[in-house]
Amino acid sequence: MALFVLFGSTGDLAQRKLYPALWSMWQKGQLDDTFAMLGVARKAQEDAAFRHQVAQAIGMEDNADPSWASFSQRFFYLSADLTQQASIQALRDRILTLEESFHTQGRRIFYLAIAPALFAPVVQQIRTTGLHQAPSDGFCRVVIEKPFGYDLASATDLNQTLREVFDEPQIYRIDHYLGKEMVQNTTAIRFANGLFEPLWNRHYVDNVQITVAESVGVEDRASYYEKAGALRDMVQNHLLQMLTLIAMEPPAHLQTEEIRDEKVKVLRALRSFDRGRVTREVVRGQYGPGRIGDKEVVGYRQEQGVDPASMTETFVALTFYVDNERWAGVPFYARTGKRLKEQGAQIVVTFRPLAHPLYKPRDANLAENRLVIRIQPIEGIYLEINSKQPGQEERIVPVALDYCQNCDPLVNTPQAYETLILDVLQGDPTRFTRWDEAALSWSLIDTIEEAWQAQTPFYPNYAAGSLGPAEADLLLESGGRRWWPLNTRADVDLFVRSAS
Amino acid sequence: MALFVLFGSTGDLAQRKLYPALWSMWQKGQLDDTFAMLGVARKAQEDAAFRHQVAQAIGMEDNADPSWASFSQRFFYLSADLTQQASIQALRDRILTLEESFHTQGRRIFYLAIAPALFAPVVQQIRTTGLHQAPSDGFCRVVIEKPFGYDLASATDLNQTLREVFDEPQIYRIDHYLGKEMVQNTTAIRFANGLFEPLWNRHYVDNVQITVAESVGVEDRASYYEKAGALRDMVQNHLLQMLTLIAMEPPAHLQTEEIRDEKVKVLRALRSFDRGRVTREVVRGQYGPGRIGDKEVVGYRQEQGVDPASMTETFVALTFYVDNERWAGVPFYARTGKRLKEQGAQIVVTFRPLAHPLYKPRDANLAENRLVIRIQPIEGIYLEINSKQPGQEERIVPVALDYCQNCDPLVNTPQAYETLILDVLQGDPTRFTRWDEAALSWSLIDTIEEAWQAQTPFYPNYAAGSLGPAEADLLLESGGRRWWPLNTRADVDLFVRSAS
Repeated sequence: MALFVLFGSTGDLAQRKLYPALWSMWQKGQLDDTFAMLGVARKAQEDAAFRHQVAQAIGMEDNADPSWASFSQRFFYLSADLTQQASIQALRDRILTLEESFHTQGRRIFYLAIAPALFAPVVQQIRTTGLHQAPSDGFCRVVIEKPFGYDLASATDLNQTLREVFDEPQIYRIDHYLGKEMVQNTTAIRFANGLFEPLWNRHYVDNVQITVAESVGVEDRASYYEKAGALRDMVQNHLLQMLTLIAMEPPAHLQTEEIRDEKVKVLRALRSFDRGRVTREVVRGQYGPGRIGDKEVVGYRQEQGVDPASMTETFVALTFYVDNERWAGVPFYARTGKRLKEQGAQIVVTFRPLAHPLYKPRDANLAENRLVIRIQPIEGIYLEINSKQPGQEERIVPVALDYCQNCDPLVNTPQAYETLILDVLQGDPTRFTRWDEAALSWSLIDTIEEAWQAQTPFYPNYAAGSLGPAEADLLLESGGRRWWPLNTRADVDLFVRSAS
Repeated sequence: MALFVLFGSTGDLAQRKLYPALWSMWQKGQLDDTFAMLGVARKAQEDAAFRHQVAQAIGMEDNADPSWASFSQRFFYLSADLTQQASIQALRDRILTLEESFHTQGRRIFYLAIAPALFAPVVQQIRTTGLHQAPSDGFCRVVIEKPFGYDLASATDLNQTLREVFDEPQIYRIDHYLGKEMVQNTTAIRFANGLFEPLWNRHYVDNVQITVAESVGVEDRASYYEKAGALRDMVQNHLLQMLTLIAMEPPAHLQTEEIRDEKVKVLRALRSFDRGRVTREVVRGQYGPGRIGDKEVVGYRQEQGVDPASMTETFVALTFYVDNERWAGVPFYARTGKRLKEQGAQIVVTFRPLAHPLYKPRDANLAENRLVIRIQPIEGIYLEINSKQPGQEERIVPVALDYCQNCDPLVNTPQAYETLILDVLQGDPTRFTRWDEAALSWSLIDTIEEAWQAQTPFYPNYAAGSLGPAEADLLLESGGRRWWPLNTRADVDLFVRSAS
């Protein structure tokens, strides 16, 4: 197994995601006796307090589970100010001691769950310890949380810093969407099904839609989010990653670098955004006050820590084109935003309508066929097809052939972070972002940000609890299309019923 | 509306299917005040007794429903021996009287739910009444239940008799499978979906399977069944009708004769059965004693009314080929039988596997994609595709995208007979068998029956409660295929669970 050295061990991500993931892995037997964790942060506290904090994160305050004792005994804490030489020395000593006690045999993972500004200094300090080089029978890997830079220049700087200390194969750039079951499943859906293979191109696909909607607002992340915005925070990484998985050519083999090469090819084929395209095909928005369900919520500019005249976008919708033979002319619509009506993520592949539908004259509402990959909160797949409505009338109605993966309590879907941590332990970087992927994404994002600088948006332009700015709908309506709603399975049923 | 003159009004079909269908239609408002029914049979009874019999058929013996009174008042009965001139005169008088009382305005339906031997005599007697010609503002239609003949010669004779009295557009040859919702739906699935259209041919379809399985035995139909057998009883009509709907080319319009023309084209394209093909590609069987569920049942030869040395087949499985550009080389497997393990009907379209599956090396069990149209008892559609099993391993498992039409109690699926009776009332013969369809089917069946005459089968060759004779499996196994089981949705789930 390995020693995890977790920077940012008192932080939100560690608390919400990493400790629960490790606990779940421990319970499944994916971690063994040679696993240990050294939490590093500035806060002064003892191991016991740290363990109590982990216990809180996983709902184990009452110590009820017998396996909790052996799990918690592997958690250690170091209070460190890494600007101080003494702290660095203490870090080195502590790591070496733990490695000896837990027989981790030089298998070492540095996990950076810290503010982006600290990435470079911490990496430098790891180097100072001399522990970035693993002993010959071990390994040393560095996991770096998003955001990986702020733009291409800063990302390149950060990468430079990392590469001075680590080789590319040691670096695991997290995009936790790649750990989500249904995002991983897109590859299987595409490459394990004879049915979809012939349809997966411009001849049969009309458009693709990628939606990641949040109903939460900026929460306590204003200081980060004010500088980032939705484009950097979500599109640069999650949405573009999903797009590449949907659009990529089949690799020769399902191997890490071959898959990454194909994803990079998609990024290279993305049509660039000149100023005209940004005006026509990129919509940004910022939420004003509104209602989410039956709760009144403030606008973005009224959120704690947000500039009352903030120009940060909390919503983006845009059209990508993959300019290659497979996808020429097929729009890939992507949208993401905060404080939207619903939360959820899905990929919708809408197939071209029939060229000459026999049923058209009788029923003007002949729906297009759609494959919907539901990423969260429901994990599943549904295919919308047209079917005869029961009864004498020859009425055609859309119905959904549905598969829900996480509706069945017997199927235990691992959380994204479990998958990704296991990948790091096993040295499999397939579900992590390679540097050239990150660089190409940033370069695309930069051109949009640049074009945006030239024009002042009118904010707020959508109400909290709405579906985003009206312009996002116009983006599709100009092509005679519309966004496919989230969580719509029930809508289809309802339609069938009301029509029957 | 119309006057129904029902020959065989005390029979099983009337009791089990026709009265319940009419009652349901009455409740839905599909029948109005000018609907009336004259039951004709040999049994001596009064209208009141007849109405009591109808009440029993629809579970209305307690007269609880207020609309039952107005419904039952339209039921009249004539005890007739139609070999007697007096009876024919009485029939004529009664019809004319009822037409006047109920203002049916010469809209007249003769419904023949009688033993096949009586078809011709009754048709002749209808002619003798002179009522086969409708008044200019009415109509006169004749509905004829199966079997429509015993072979091509007898079917041609019967048709001749009918055509001496009625024109082809007046004749409604019932195949009640064409009234089943999901059989009708095959046309919608094919012609209302851009997704399936490009796949519906030899390039993407590996094979088609049509199964109609019964768990009942011969019941009280031995005298008919002994002479008919499964090939005449089920394949000549239901199975071939389903095959033509699956295989037909799109008609220019969804209109009766255009659709029937396309179905006939399929029958014409069916590869003929020479003696060699019958030996290789047609399997017949007869059930021996066995168990259905936890009930011991006798073999066919021990059934009431069956010859103890009977050579009648109770099971058939065979391979059809549609020799045209769309389907060349694609086997259409069909099977039907009595006393099988389960009852149910379905059409399975299995798509070709991937030519070079990327996942193959990791998982030898990569399943083919399948579209399953479930006809009964569950009405629905499911599509089996391959999906990533949740978890770290890149394991691919089959999952079913499922739509169940009659699982939702809010969706009221009409019974086949409701649909068909309404069709007759509305003068729409689309869901009935045109003479050339019947003739071509019989001619195909005759060649098989002929070849069978030359060889004595070894009966019984399957146990009641089994899946039929082993040879039926070999039929597919020689091509590396297997029958797709009925009611398998649960199996798929089970597989996913057991593998997870």
